[in-house]
Amino acid sequence: MTLHGKSFIAGSLGALGGKAFRAENPATSEQLAPEFHEASEAEVARALEASATAFGEYRTRSGAERAKLLEVIAEEIEKLGDALLQRANAETGLPIARLTGERARTCGQLRLFAQVAREGSWIDARIDPALPDRQPLSRPDLRRMLIPLGPVVVFGSSNFPLAFSVAGGDTASAFAAGCTVVVKAHRAHPGTSELVAGAIVRAAAACGLPAGVFSMIHGGGATVGIAMVKHPATTAVGFTGSHTAGRALFDAAVARPHPIPVFAEMSSINPVFIFPGALRERGAAIAQGLLASFTLGAGQFCTKPGLVFAVRGVDTDAFITKLSELVRAAPNATMLTRGIRDTFQENRAQITGVAGVQPLAAGTNAADTARTEGQPSVATTTVKNFLANPALATEAFGPFTLVIVADTLEEFSACARTLDGQLTATLHGNEDDLASARRLIGTLEQKAGRVLLNGFPTGVEVSPAMNHGGPYPATTDVRYTSVGTAAMLRFARPVCYQSLPDGLLPDALKSANPLGLLRLVDGQPTRQPLESK
Amino acid sequence: MTLHGKSFIAGSLGALGGKAFRAENPATSEQLAPEFHEASEAEVARALEASATAFGEYRTRSGAERAKLLEVIAEEIEKLGDALLQRANAETGLPIARLTGERARTCGQLRLFAQVAREGSWIDARIDPALPDRQPLSRPDLRRMLIPLGPVVVFGSSNFPLAFSVAGGDTASAFAAGCTVVVKAHRAHPGTSELVAGAIVRAAAACGLPAGVFSMIHGGGATVGIAMVKHPATTAVGFTGSHTAGRALFDAAVARPHPIPVFAEMSSINPVFIFPGALRERGAAIAQGLLASFTLGAGQFCTKPGLVFAVRGVDTDAFITKLSELVRAAPNATMLTRGIRDTFQENRAQITGVAGVQPLAAGTNAADTARTEGQPSVATTTVKNFLANPALATEAFGPFTLVIVADTLEEFSACARTLDGQLTATLHGNEDDLASARRLIGTLEQKAGRVLLNGFPTGVEVSPAMNHGGPYPATTDVRYTSVGTAAMLRFARPVCYQSLPDGLLPDALKSANPLGLLRLVDGQPTRQPLESK
Repeated sequence: MTLHGKSFIAGSLGALGGKAFRAENPATSEQLAPEFHEASEAEVARALEASATAFGEYRTRSGAERAKLLEVIAEEIEKLGDALLQRANAETGLPIARLTGERARTCGQLRLFAQVAREGSWIDARIDPALPDRQPLSRPDLRRMLIPLGPVVVFGSSNFPLAFSVAGGDTASAFAAGCTVVVKAHRAHPGTSELVAGAIVRAAAACGLPAGVFSMIHGGGATVGIAMVKHPATTAVGFTGSHTAGRALFDAAVARPHPIPVFAEMSSINPVFIFPGALRERGAAIAQGLLASFTLGAGQFCTKPGLVFAVRGVDTDAFITKLSELVRAAPNATMLTRGIRDTFQENRAQITGVAGVQPLAAGTNAADTARTEGQPSVATTTVKNFLANPALATEAFGPFTLVIVADTLEEFSACARTLDGQLTATLHGNEDDLASARRLIGTLEQKAGRVLLNGFPTGVEVSPAMNHGGPYPATTDVRYTSVGTAAMLRFARPVCYQSLPDGLLPDALKSANPLGLLRLVDGQPTRQPLESK
Repeated sequence: MTLHGKSFIAGSLGALGGKAFRAENPATSEQLAPEFHEASEAEVARALEASATAFGEYRTRSGAERAKLLEVIAEEIEKLGDALLQRANAETGLPIARLTGERARTCGQLRLFAQVAREGSWIDARIDPALPDRQPLSRPDLRRMLIPLGPVVVFGSSNFPLAFSVAGGDTASAFAAGCTVVVKAHRAHPGTSELVAGAIVRAAAACGLPAGVFSMIHGGGATVGIAMVKHPATTAVGFTGSHTAGRALFDAAVARPHPIPVFAEMSSINPVFIFPGALRERGAAIAQGLLASFTLGAGQFCTKPGLVFAVRGVDTDAFITKLSELVRAAPNATMLTRGIRDTFQENRAQITGVAGVQPLAAGTNAADTARTEGQPSVATTTVKNFLANPALATEAFGPFTLVIVADTLEEFSACARTLDGQLTATLHGNEDDLASARRLIGTLEQKAGRVLLNGFPTGVEVSPAMNHGGPYPATTDVRYTSVGTAAMLRFARPVCYQSLPDGLLPDALKSANPLGLLRLVDGQPTRQPLESK
């Protein structure tokens, strides 16, 4: 497939920004053709103005029509075939098998949001029928539902070039909620982005939607991104990436004359607490699971376990020995970009440079710079040292984890209380261990968005009950998830209609309940029509 | 009842701020006894630290226990009897009848939130049971629910000294959600605040709760308020008041190292669009309803209709004549404070000072300064002038409204599109009118949180379907309501438990569904227990 290297601005191709760049194959350091062209600020404005205009139409489309768009996008992505996987592989260094799975996840996610949009009850319809005879005051007829916010700006993430990029969870949930979307393509995979954007553009056209429902902007550095966040037409922002970039977008959004919400998923070290019984019973298996989890995707998962707590003793010694052995045998892996590799090495060096931190093991071969490799490694320190050095709780985004050895089980809670906001927190324990784990779980649920038992945090299910979020700095808005069907709630807001006749109400709120939604009528959930109006 | 004039700091009385102040009876300009004492920043910190500690316990209380607290607070407020109404009347100038109604609303609101907390399904429990045999990957057991955020800072509002002050909607919804509360008492009714705070303190003690679940701070200016927002223990802020104050709190909250949500309900001019058929059929009745609505509580309602659009013609002439007549006959009314009265007069003068704005009528008597009176008045201008002067869309918080005369009905939509975010937007129309109203409603639902037909926006029902919110600057967070049962959602956030055994799960998520909640199991709503685990 031939790539044109330009932004998609509401159906036309843009390339007025002047600067050009190329993607780089991190596994070979090769510069890839073609050149990509940054969009200008005028093009950003044009994309967002078109998005606002298209929103006026797209917002009126039914849940079934939004579902159709999502499903056709999934089909168009599948039609891209191997060309998409090959380009993504060349741009990210992620193996074809992983990308195949990620494509399935991306399309599955689009279809899941389509289901929820089509069924429709997610809009939380509530009807309080009129009480004309109520004393001392009558009650008017009140009907409330969620409606879409408006144009959403989505920043593609580097580490999920399909599932959290151009047609990823943010875009899918925004479309499902009835919002239009302008994506800022990630510079590390512009060709992958162009292919997927083309799929969305074709799907929108096939569904008879105005071209403005979707644009995708190429741009470098923060300038283009900040311009997108500051544009008056933008009503919300989805972002997955570093704390520095996420906070900059958040700061720009809240300083606007009209502030807008930013859903930035940023940084998390995903602590794992291993209780003594679990270590005794299956220390080797835990070491194996941990190795697999912290080196998955070269450690470049938001949910990578970066801190592991265990209590001093022979079982912990054996666990550390086993883990070290596994790490030494683990292969190096190509990281997504040189920048990510460099930052990983800096952050890891900062952690291992703290006095009292001992390196335990590293992969046998040195990392190959030309192949942008990350070398798996593990280090250890004591709880005392951990509590004295907040820098040890820095995220090192890559294949590294730090084992913290406690003197007593009670120290787990003390460590948990010092933690910053996290996406996940994990416990390993057998039945005896868990008798005493209730308090720790109570602390962890206040620190993290997801609490796991006897598993590993990588691998985030896309489902109704998933929560991929957490207290700051894990995200900028602890009230929402970016993965799973509840992600749609980020891009909607309530409106109440008072005393409107059926003819002027949205179908979702009509007395006969023509969409068959589950609604709250007088506070009681029901799919029944209203008795009369 | 004797007032002590001190802050309630987690069960003890505080008064270290140094400065003292008195309430003033706006109807007499009389300084009221006793002196009230500002809290110091150290006391603010003590209240919030105690709030965080108490949260550790209160968050574990069941919905039934939270409900009990709310119900006992309502009982304790009722026990205060006439003394509460008399003090509130002296401090605010609001008539006893209005305050009696507002007390009923306040207690009704506490009991409604109690019902919702006791029933429990508001926590949006979702369970995706494990699929151990799923290919290519098994699915773990995932269970998600909403849990409380933490200590909430509530700013009492001036215009609802009971229903949106110390034990008002913000406090009630925060307690119902499982949060602890620190109130900043409004300086205009410190004695009323002390009485209600005493009721809450007694209720918390009667329910066996730690004293830190509730504190109330007296303070002046922005210093104490900003200190409360910036304290690291604070996790959310509820506010009703001016745009200037609300934005200052928002700016402080988002500039924190760990930003927190601010639910500020700030400014709204609540446009009313009157279609020709409605004016022809019942112009006089609309004039009467409008007069009652914009002078209710001396025009000091967030939902006061401040802009009225009508189309030029004989019916509009008659409507304006009728409205002017009613305004001339309308009595002056004591406003809440001299500051509010002064600001009202300034903003009204700014509006009526714009070239092309004609005064239509004012109450017969001049406002009595010593009685802090507001004089009802109405002015008029053209759409052309309105569109040329954004200052005409300023909120004048008091008994004033501006009638804008359009040349054609099409101008309604043009005006609607220029409006800033609103709490409400109202239409009056007969059946013929409404045939052409769909587009205007489409615009208004994007501008406002509530769209009304053939009614008036004052009078906000406290119910499941109410939405009292709106796009900025009506509020700082369009995604939430501050009135009605959905207000609890402001103070909660999701957490997901992965593979936890029943014994470690909250009751809400246990397989047997011991609380009988409506839950989403595998995406389907049900009150049934899980088949097995």
